[in-house]
Amino acid sequence: MEEEGMEDISLKELAKKLDEFAKARDWQNYHTPRNLLLAMVGEVGEVSEIFQWRGEVEKGLANWEESEKEHLGEELSDVLLYLIRLADICGIDLPHAATKKLLKNAIKYPPNSNPFSS
Amino acid sequence: MEEEGMEDISLKELAKKLDEFAKARDWQNYHTPRNLLLAMVGEVGEVSEIFQWRGEVEKGLANWEESEKEHLGEELSDVLLYLIRLADICGIDLPHAATKKLLKNAIKYPPNSNPFSS
Amino acid sequence: MEEEGMEDISLKELAKKLDEFAKARDWQNYHTPRNLLLAMVGEVGEVSEIFQWRGEVEKGLANWEESEKEHLGEELSDVLLYLIRLADICGIDLPHAATKKLLKNAIKYPPNSNPFSS
Amino acid sequence: MEEEGMEDISLKELAKKLDEFAKARDWQNYHTPRNLLLAMVGEVGEVSEIFQWRGEVEKGLANWEESEKEHLGEELSDVLLYLIRLADICGIDLPHAATKKLLKNAIKYPPNSNPFSS
Repeated sequence: MEEEGMEDISLKELAKKLDEFAKARDWQNYHTPRNLLLAMVGEVGEVSEIFQWRGEVEKGLANWEESEKEHLGEELSDVLLYLIRLADICGIDLPHAATKKLLKNAIKYPPNSNPFSS
Repeated sequence: MEEEGMEDISLKELAKKLDEFAKARDWQNYHTPRNLLLAMVGEVGEVSEIFQWRGEVEKGLANWEESEKEHLGEELSDVLLYLIRLADICGIDLPHAATKKLLKNAIKYPPNSNPFSS
Repeated sequence: MEEEGMEDISLKELAKKLDEFAKARDWQNYHTPRNLLLAMVGEVGEVSEIFQWRGEVEKGLANWEESEKEHLGEELSDVLLYLIRLADICGIDLPHAATKKLLKNAIKYPPNSNPFSS
Repeated sequence: MEEEGMEDISLKELAKKLDEFAKARDWQNYHTPRNLLLAMVGEVGEVSEIFQWRGEVEKGLANWEESEKEHLGEELSDVLLYLIRLADICGIDLPHAATKKLLKNAIKYPPNSNPFSS
């Protein structure tokens, strides 16, 4: 049995699960690029609603109720799932693109660079 | 050597890489929950700009230039990287939450259910 | 009595009403720039949810139920009200800025210019 | 001559100007509901980018450069202009809807109500 915290999942596994999920429900016609994009924007809105009236929030969400953290985890997951599905439907290899973007960022921002105080 | 298309990466590996990246640049102070959330919203905006004047877009992005697909891959990656970093900074176990959300959805929407025609 | 369709309201009138509204409820402390921005993002998410599974939508929303149009009107209003409030709290003169932006656009895009097929 | 700060503009005037602007450039075909919605999301992203690394921001934007305030005014205007155009293209009477929403909020939240500490 797997311990909590040891769990992990890859981008391709998630994409595969989402594809099977949609096929089993015959939802492929709804999963067009712009439909999925707008669904993702909707979920980003739900994440924003969780943070909207709180002023600055501490790392680790100190003082949040367990139910609020649970809710945030669900909304972040919704963003992730639509994002992965959107990439897949567009034929974008997201693991490849993300890995490449990390390398590009590492070159663009050498250690100790500070792009924030522009 | 790994073939293109065989590449994959897990959510935890990405979270770890992003954490090392921020630490090597001393960016932790900038990586607060609401800063990262707004950065993610900014990247979602960039994805939207790619799709904004196109009308409906076909699956697989037929007729898109290779450079446009490349650009989309980068912007989707930016959303992904900020999303994973946001979850990590909030202490949310995203692989766990996403897996749980998939199970919850499978129960909420049995095969052949159709939630679209509200 | 005013006929429907004859109604109009200015940006400054709306900003004034919103300010009175907040003061009467002692909400000023919640109306910080980033709180209002995230609230606006939340409302943009709600607008997106209305459009998300529909594929391309015709101008004038032919075939939409009256209740769906009503709902859309409410969500667009929410975006507008948070936007006007955000500008006001930031000390941005939105009527001035918007008028100026229109002039700038008129210069940037001369009649018959087409910036869409970039 | 009008003094700065005395300027004002109504929602209908803006909608009319935007309609004339689009017609003079033959842009009507691009101004579909979902195109305009995605364009608005793109502009909300640009507003977010201005606020993303700043931590909490004071009312009135104390310590911001004049050029940063100018930039914010432009991006807020872009959100406003796409929002008004989107409503118009959808056949939504935004002045009417916004006025109605204000009344609805006044009933929903009586003076001294506090919906923030959920």
